[in-house]
Amino acid sequence: MPINATFRAIVLVFFATHITATILMDSQAILPPAVVPGFAKSLLRFHVRTNHDPLMEWQPVWFKSFILFELLFQLPFFFVGFRAFYERRNWIRIPGIAYGTHTATTLVPILAEILTHDEFPSEAARWQLFLIYLPYLVIPAMIAVALSLEEKPFGEDGDGPDPGASAKRRKSKRG
Amino acid sequence: MPINATFRAIVLVFFATHITATILMDSQAILPPAVVPGFAKSLLRFHVRTNHDPLMEWQPVWFKSFILFELLFQLPFFFVGFRAFYERRNWIRIPGIAYGTHTATTLVPILAEILTHDEFPSEAARWQLFLIYLPYLVIPAMIAVALSLEEKPFGEDGDGPDPGASAKRRKSKRG
Repeated sequence: MPINATFRAIVLVFFATHITATILMDSQAILPPAVVPGFAKSLLRFHVRTNHDPLMEWQPVWFKSFILFELLFQLPFFFVGFRAFYERRNWIRIPGIAYGTHTATTLVPILAEILTHDEFPSEAARWQLFLIYLPYLVIPAMIAVALSLEEKPFGEDGDGPDPGASAKRRKSKRG
Repeated sequence: MPINATFRAIVLVFFATHITATILMDSQAILPPAVVPGFAKSLLRFHVRTNHDPLMEWQPVWFKSFILFELLFQLPFFFVGFRAFYERRNWIRIPGIAYGTHTATTLVPILAEILTHDEFPSEAARWQLFLIYLPYLVIPAMIAVALSLEEKPFGEDGDGPDPGASAKRRKSKRG
């Protein structure tokens, strides 16, 4: 089953909003404070205070290493992935599987840490933060699975305007 | 370029030795001590003492969450992957990309932790442990890259004895 309209819309919104979240919030775990605008710092303080996020508050080394990879690889991928899903291009299949698997993997220790951290003010606060992070596991994992299941995730038309591919397609239609 | 004999041999040895390492050593981070045989415990103590491994010694939650996934997903994959590389089967492409990306990702925080940990007896000890873990980043990453680059990583023959595929191949040779 090729990728349907609903899932495509979810992925487009996910990539677009993730660009903002990565630049304004996550990047603060590794950028020097001098380059971060004041309103972004306030936003992060607000998130840490409201959602009791121990990872963004204490920023352990292992967590920061993932943020570095988020800036180096995920951030450029959001633009590439957005364009590919917007234009329904099958060439996103392999890069998208790698992106989805990588990102879902980074959420494993993050969610494990949230599940076991012992300084939440309440169990409700723990689950609130868990649910905030959960989509960053679920959506990338669904991207990886959806792209894995179909050799042409966007169907025959998803091979796009590459002249070789369309010539082959015309030929096979004629034959 | 399809996967060459040297790389295939490296991958086979990697999967085979990893099965032993996962069962005897890594699993101890999450299994109850009662089920671990004494010689495996001695082996792990020897590794921690000799290589000053803070992760296997202190076993932080984020690290344990990766070991859980290693037991649940990587361990079964080693058998599947070994067979596929042994028999040169192209169907390993997508599962292999997911395996390689997942595993290489887990090594990012592990290596970051080793690079920044401040209780190594010497810098030489730090780099010794770094080099022990490094192949577990490099080989899975190379598997993911090698399988990504080729639509048929083991060439046309890698499609195997599936009757549909070979009938199609015979037809295309005749045509």
